[in-house]
Amino acid sequence: MPMIRPTTLLTFPRLNKYVGREVLLASETFQHTGSFKFRGAWYMASHISHRHLLAASSGNFGQALAFACRELRKRCTVVVPHDAASVKVDAIREFGGEVECIDTHQISRKQRISELAQQYPEAYVASGYDDDLMIAGNGTLGKELAHCAGTIDAIVAPVGGGGLTSGIIVGLRETQVHIPVIGAEPLLANRVTRSMKAGHIVADTTESKTIADGARVTSLGARNWEILKNSLQQAVEVPEDAIREATRLLFRFANLKVEPTAALSLAAILSSTRHFPKRVCCVITGGNVDPRTYAQLIG
Amino acid sequence: MPMIRPTTLLTFPRLNKYVGREVLLASETFQHTGSFKFRGAWYMASHISHRHLLAASSGNFGQALAFACRELRKRCTVVVPHDAASVKVDAIREFGGEVECIDTHQISRKQRISELAQQYPEAYVASGYDDDLMIAGNGTLGKELAHCAGTIDAIVAPVGGGGLTSGIIVGLRETQVHIPVIGAEPLLANRVTRSMKAGHIVADTTESKTIADGARVTSLGARNWEILKNSLQQAVEVPEDAIREATRLLFRFANLKVEPTAALSLAAILSSTRHFPKRVCCVITGGNVDPRTYAQLIG
Repeated sequence: MPMIRPTTLLTFPRLNKYVGREVLLASETFQHTGSFKFRGAWYMASHISHRHLLAASSGNFGQALAFACRELRKRCTVVVPHDAASVKVDAIREFGGEVECIDTHQISRKQRISELAQQYPEAYVASGYDDDLMIAGNGTLGKELAHCAGTIDAIVAPVGGGGLTSGIIVGLRETQVHIPVIGAEPLLANRVTRSMKAGHIVADTTESKTIADGARVTSLGARNWEILKNSLQQAVEVPEDAIREATRLLFRFANLKVEPTAALSLAAILSSTRHFPKRVCCVITGGNVDPRTYAQLIG
Repeated sequence: MPMIRPTTLLTFPRLNKYVGREVLLASETFQHTGSFKFRGAWYMASHISHRHLLAASSGNFGQALAFACRELRKRCTVVVPHDAASVKVDAIREFGGEVECIDTHQISRKQRISELAQQYPEAYVASGYDDDLMIAGNGTLGKELAHCAGTIDAIVAPVGGGGLTSGIIVGLRETQVHIPVIGAEPLLANRVTRSMKAGHIVADTTESKTIADGARVTSLGARNWEILKNSLQQAVEVPEDAIREATRLLFRFANLKVEPTAALSLAAILSSTRHFPKRVCCVITGGNVDPRTYAQLIG
């Protein structure tokens, strides 16, 4: 049985010098299935009695869930949009997941999941973020980072649906360690910033075109928002250029291959340096990126 | 003071399936300065009394020595060939090293080093591999891998001058652990294979054009050969295509950004699978590669 792998903590003097902060990278690129999503997926799949799980995923959650289910000898069906990165879709299949590719112009992922839920009433409909078990699973990262207390002044992590940031907050809380958590979101998909201003969840009707495809979800999860609204220190809106630059910097100074979404946390520091204290832990959420996309980004 | 960082041990089920072996990756891409060379450089620079070090290096050794010297407040002059990867040359300078760029068609690195040694008689002429302190420093990796005894049947590592493989052998020997060590060298620069056949060092007159630029040295080191000739289990000659494929596989299945030289060990398994036992530790020597070169390789 695979256990959740500890995050890979890394520091690089040249990166620090370039960024003007002491940056501790917490890389989840070597987590099982290449992203932090395995933490929640494993935690969830191993804490429910259902033998069949249904999920919608642009890829990382799908891979994570497929692998977790295979190891637990459970069935896993993943609904994937037609424009998802092919490396991620291939991986879902290789990990034993059943893939349902849909044209998101014809039917939303939510609708298709509803149809499948009717077809398989005994199945568990797994959200990649809006689920207490996913949050608890992501909390394992918060607990790990709690050990860094005293050496970091803040943690910055990408926000899509809010599963990771809410999980880190819950994990830190359980260890009774206080480290401020900052969310990094694409300016093109700034749901957290708008929700914080409004005091309630502000959802989009269509998915953003941000290069950070892991942050294209249209809305924060309700369970995530309940945690974030009081406990997220702030949200930073990140322009696309900064995401690209951060991806390149991680390649150059940290020898890290990351997907654009994962570069959001470093990109937040690049684009809003003054919002950050001296010592920042950047969560690098995953590394699954199409080779062509990546080659264009760094070449 | 930086200490030598432990290697990063990683496994990936999809990589294993693809390769047909249980592969344990020992990645030195997150070592200080991005390659295993820091082990020897730090060990050497901290074990000699000289305040000024001279070295010839296509890059990785130069970076490692520059960083080690800066931390030890020593002076470091690095002779670099005109066609060295610019990321490596920039890094030498950023780490405080003095760079001497030479046209290798006009003067060999050896010659220029001799000139500098005459100019600075008090300086230590540092070899990147043919030096007992470098070997001992690389031995720290052998000692780390000794802890994997029982879970691996062999260790495969790239061979350039022979510093790493001889170091691993020495490190294993000190811990009294026996694990066979296999050398992976480019077919285009197969000095080990030819030397083993001849029973003595066979040197080339010109540098090979292999994509594995860390293995372009014209000859094994004398001190390295003394260790390798009796203790290296075998050398595997690796075609260029396999080096490229291994670089891509490490990107795809391991989320690892590696330089082509570092992919030699996995490439050796790809091209000569039958020579390898079931469980193999592949040493991934470093990650410093020009973005354009890398983009072409994976794109």
